[in-house]
Amino acid sequence: MIIVLKHGANKTEIAEFSAHLKSLGVGIHESSGVETTILGLVGDTSRLNESSIAAHSIVEKVMRVNEPYKMANRKFHPEDTVVEIENAENAIVGKNHFAIMAGPCSVENREQITGIARAVKASGATFLRGGAFKPRTSPYAFQGLGTEGLDLLLEAKKATGLPIVTELMAIKQLEYFDNVDIIQIGARNMQNFDLLKELGSCGKPILLKRGLANTAKELLMSAEYIMAGGNEQIILCERGIRSFDNFTRNVLDLGVIPFLKKESHLPVIVDPSHATGCAWMVEPMAKAALAAGADGLIIEVHNNPKMALCDGEQSITPPQFESLMKKLRKYAEIEGKTL
Amino acid sequence: MIIVLKHGANKTEIAEFSAHLKSLGVGIHESSGVETTILGLVGDTSRLNESSIAAHSIVEKVMRVNEPYKMANRKFHPEDTVVEIENAENAIVGKNHFAIMAGPCSVENREQITGIARAVKASGATFLRGGAFKPRTSPYAFQGLGTEGLDLLLEAKKATGLPIVTELMAIKQLEYFDNVDIIQIGARNMQNFDLLKELGSCGKPILLKRGLANTAKELLMSAEYIMAGGNEQIILCERGIRSFDNFTRNVLDLGVIPFLKKESHLPVIVDPSHATGCAWMVEPMAKAALAAGADGLIIEVHNNPKMALCDGEQSITPPQFESLMKKLRKYAEIEGKTL
Amino acid sequence: MIIVLKHGANKTEIAEFSAHLKSLGVGIHESSGVETTILGLVGDTSRLNESSIAAHSIVEKVMRVNEPYKMANRKFHPEDTVVEIENAENAIVGKNHFAIMAGPCSVENREQITGIARAVKASGATFLRGGAFKPRTSPYAFQGLGTEGLDLLLEAKKATGLPIVTELMAIKQLEYFDNVDIIQIGARNMQNFDLLKELGSCGKPILLKRGLANTAKELLMSAEYIMAGGNEQIILCERGIRSFDNFTRNVLDLGVIPFLKKESHLPVIVDPSHATGCAWMVEPMAKAALAAGADGLIIEVHNNPKMALCDGEQSITPPQFESLMKKLRKYAEIEGKTL
Amino acid sequence: MIIVLKHGANKTEIAEFSAHLKSLGVGIHESSGVETTILGLVGDTSRLNESSIAAHSIVEKVMRVNEPYKMANRKFHPEDTVVEIENAENAIVGKNHFAIMAGPCSVENREQITGIARAVKASGATFLRGGAFKPRTSPYAFQGLGTEGLDLLLEAKKATGLPIVTELMAIKQLEYFDNVDIIQIGARNMQNFDLLKELGSCGKPILLKRGLANTAKELLMSAEYIMAGGNEQIILCERGIRSFDNFTRNVLDLGVIPFLKKESHLPVIVDPSHATGCAWMVEPMAKAALAAGADGLIIEVHNNPKMALCDGEQSITPPQFESLMKKLRKYAEIEGKTL
Repeated sequence: MIIVLKHGANKTEIAEFSAHLKSLGVGIHESSGVETTILGLVGDTSRLNESSIAAHSIVEKVMRVNEPYKMANRKFHPEDTVVEIENAENAIVGKNHFAIMAGPCSVENREQITGIARAVKASGATFLRGGAFKPRTSPYAFQGLGTEGLDLLLEAKKATGLPIVTELMAIKQLEYFDNVDIIQIGARNMQNFDLLKELGSCGKPILLKRGLANTAKELLMSAEYIMAGGNEQIILCERGIRSFDNFTRNVLDLGVIPFLKKESHLPVIVDPSHATGCAWMVEPMAKAALAAGADGLIIEVHNNPKMALCDGEQSITPPQFESLMKKLRKYAEIEGKTL
Repeated sequence: MIIVLKHGANKTEIAEFSAHLKSLGVGIHESSGVETTILGLVGDTSRLNESSIAAHSIVEKVMRVNEPYKMANRKFHPEDTVVEIENAENAIVGKNHFAIMAGPCSVENREQITGIARAVKASGATFLRGGAFKPRTSPYAFQGLGTEGLDLLLEAKKATGLPIVTELMAIKQLEYFDNVDIIQIGARNMQNFDLLKELGSCGKPILLKRGLANTAKELLMSAEYIMAGGNEQIILCERGIRSFDNFTRNVLDLGVIPFLKKESHLPVIVDPSHATGCAWMVEPMAKAALAAGADGLIIEVHNNPKMALCDGEQSITPPQFESLMKKLRKYAEIEGKTL
Repeated sequence: MIIVLKHGANKTEIAEFSAHLKSLGVGIHESSGVETTILGLVGDTSRLNESSIAAHSIVEKVMRVNEPYKMANRKFHPEDTVVEIENAENAIVGKNHFAIMAGPCSVENREQITGIARAVKASGATFLRGGAFKPRTSPYAFQGLGTEGLDLLLEAKKATGLPIVTELMAIKQLEYFDNVDIIQIGARNMQNFDLLKELGSCGKPILLKRGLANTAKELLMSAEYIMAGGNEQIILCERGIRSFDNFTRNVLDLGVIPFLKKESHLPVIVDPSHATGCAWMVEPMAKAALAAGADGLIIEVHNNPKMALCDGEQSITPPQFESLMKKLRKYAEIEGKTL
Repeated sequence: MIIVLKHGANKTEIAEFSAHLKSLGVGIHESSGVETTILGLVGDTSRLNESSIAAHSIVEKVMRVNEPYKMANRKFHPEDTVVEIENAENAIVGKNHFAIMAGPCSVENREQITGIARAVKASGATFLRGGAFKPRTSPYAFQGLGTEGLDLLLEAKKATGLPIVTELMAIKQLEYFDNVDIIQIGARNMQNFDLLKELGSCGKPILLKRGLANTAKELLMSAEYIMAGGNEQIILCERGIRSFDNFTRNVLDLGVIPFLKKESHLPVIVDPSHATGCAWMVEPMAKAALAAGADGLIIEVHNNPKMALCDGEQSITPPQFESLMKKLRKYAEIEGKTL
């Protein structure tokens, strides 16, 4: 941590302030320039309170040099984390696998979910996605089938062998997630800290979506919450961020992939469906995500988008998914990944 | 709702599509221009699924004409909502009252919270704020005193008579909030829909903070969630939004005040402390909020900001608060508000 | 300037790199912590190239400690800059004056501009604004009357004695601006560096509008361009920034006012008309700007907004302006400003 | 264009308003719902002034249905535009060519620019980029070699046969651009409308960069300015947009590529160097751009980034460029493009 002092701070003030800092357990290097005095803090500064330090009258600004995340940090954990589902074929996220999670936005009924599950499996998906509990901006919109939806997902799992990824919205729902394979945490819950703490001890892999206006570092801090609780099986997911433009629903930030892969050992996947909100943009963005280094994709597939109970506009059909998979395989081959 | 059809949609397609829409219970006006055909939907369109409609092959785009919020909408509820705490002097938000909620970011100990409560009351605050459960980006940061903090707040309430505003982070904490006067929902929980639903039946006023990247309409939709559950005692709160600039922590969007007051009957307050993150910006932003039409302020006051366990940088001291109140009184007088 | 070195940089590399830096004319303080080595650069670092330094293989990151603006910086010029127009009554921006610049978006004809000029003068405006050269997003939109518009502005100036503020879009137009009192540079030209350089020697006060997505520091750097050319008569103007929300055209960032007043000695005014794009929001935002510490306002006034050739939606009428001025006077009195 | 009227507008007002609109040369379809009356305007609405219409007292909002760009619009010009430089081998942007423009940020001296030109040509670049006039945020930063830089670029062109792409910052510089092959307009000049008008008659292809906070539609409107002046040889360029996050300099918005290709017939290229500001991110973003459907790339290559006079941090070296080209060729092959 570096502390830049105000122009005009006198020696007595600096000495008192330095003594206070030392009492907090850190060492100090002082550099005095013509215009500015800088204090470099050495030691474990991760528990220092930047804001209180900045409140001192002689402080101009406080800058962190080291990242505040430790367990999610590649510096202290150089090996890639791989998330693998037992008893499921090829259901691996990370390493040389390019994971494909596919399925409808919402589970609607038995025929729909099992039908789509069969179709996406036939095209090469290795995970089934589908929402039972749905976060909706409007209280009057369809809120998902709830536990009934979870049951239908489990039937589709039984029918196809595909492990299940589905969203958890509240701690109290955890009791129904025993047979779910990967718990998805939506963008709006990325900083629901009480929920994150609970996930630390749930014993299941977590698919953690980046919030619509959260920085890459905040995403890693949210992963750190879960890891600090003892759960290191985390998949990060980029799903678009808010910007000033609205030609698509959100801006898919593919640059975050190489950044996260460099900073962290956790696998990173991309959701091109929610990011763009447009079915016709899924293919180019899916290919671009692979090219940018993603470890997989989560894609909405619906047998009849124009009758979908939600998000029809962004769902591709099973034949479009089949066509996409063929193209992705060529890209994966170049990158030495299996798909 | 207005549906713009694609250039080239033929008569048969349009007729089929129109029949489908009518089957959903709405009437249709068709306008055919040279380049474009437009369908105007009449009737209750609030439950139509925009995204599924947009997935039809002949649809270019779908535009909503009416706001999706009803109970929060001034059109259907022209009278201002006023939130008033019983058995507390002048603890009113709305109408001609300019409400002042003041106190520390976090409750730290008995002397601190009771001392600050006495000080802010002496200067004219009518509510005591203070955090017991704290949302922190880092799992390693101070997380608040929890229920012990609530107890200390209640002691300060008893000592001063000031009603209490404090943050609730999870449904399971509700059981401890019996004697809390106003439940604060933080920016990161503005779209925690399960929590919002629960608040609909909690029987207490809610202070709902706008998310860092949420639109004004989304804020109203979140209020609508609570109101749809039966609780109409809601105070909206602007606390800064994310932007590309970072000279302050967030950008305080004061334009949202007149917008919310026009669109909705709910009172609107402003948090200049969290918005700016800088103690020296609290005064100009507080005055500007009053001038822009806010119904009150929530301000961080700490007796010793440089020793604060969190957010010291943005806290003003009791003497600064006293000075601010004097200035605000002059502004309030111009606007015909009591303070 | 502070340089954080990569974990693992060895002594030889550090020594070589330090020697290179010293050869650029700066002194170096080295702080070696357990995880990180930090170099503090002392001396005049304003001409060092951050990006090239960051390209060195052992550099983790480079952080500037001092602001890159010098002439616009209050540290080196503590006295407030005041812009005053000679031979015009009360036409002062800065100090204890709250300047009001009012007039139509575009000059349309003699009756319109002179009529509005008389009206706004009667209500207390001390500058007349009006566009002759108009920046328009569409090549098919009305582009302003050009030099004819300037002539009409000068007639209105003669008729009322109000000094003129009008926008310059290109260097080649400078020859027509001899009798203009303040040259306005629009948001889209804030980083038109060739234009800024030219303004350094034009001998006239400049009203420099902040770009829609420019930081406060970039605004100061653009002022620095003009000042470096010898012209220190600059008025900064906040006119709204882009955000993810669109309930108003832009987000008026009033927090930038106290920031700019603290960092710089230049006066700061606010344009509530362009920022919001809504006539009914002008009054609350104008009052809020004054309360936040602005030195003045630039406001669109049109005698017949629904027939305006541009920006009718955001123009207030002369009676609305008269009413606004009455309210502003009360606010100005509290702040000890004349209006 | 669609006009939504306010709740409560009466028949007389609607009739008068409709008559006014008809007098502007458009037809009207009226749809009256229970809560809302909607007017659909038919005919050429491209010259109507939305803002003045919105200023009418009975208007709630105005929505455009058709795009305001015509010449840049694929609807009216379905064939792809291809930009081809005469007398240069393979110097084609558009169709099945994936164009590579490579070179240093700034021209520094003869050896540097000719050396880099030879290197990038050997690896397969078909255009040489390099800045002679440089837009810099600070007036104290290196501003480019100016006309001397242009001369050095022309020498490099003679030595290698590579056509030249270089930035024009002001109209007055046009006289020196006779032998330049493609004129680049930087992000900060995207809405320098006087400059755009001038380019309409310059007879040379224009590389038009998207502004840092400009929407895709504004980019197309700026292209429309140039096209309206008679110049249809335009290449659009995505180079990153501003967001709330700063782990890279800007957010590269690759979703804009399929959007622009769908809306317009103009070719689209990507600048991964300026977008990210990091040399190590150029490769993944370059591959992703190709995968997303771009027609080419403009990339910074410098023989000695750590001594570069500007932007060293984002420049890759000739060997890194060679390696990148090999990877891009595999991707191009999948997409059926030559490179």
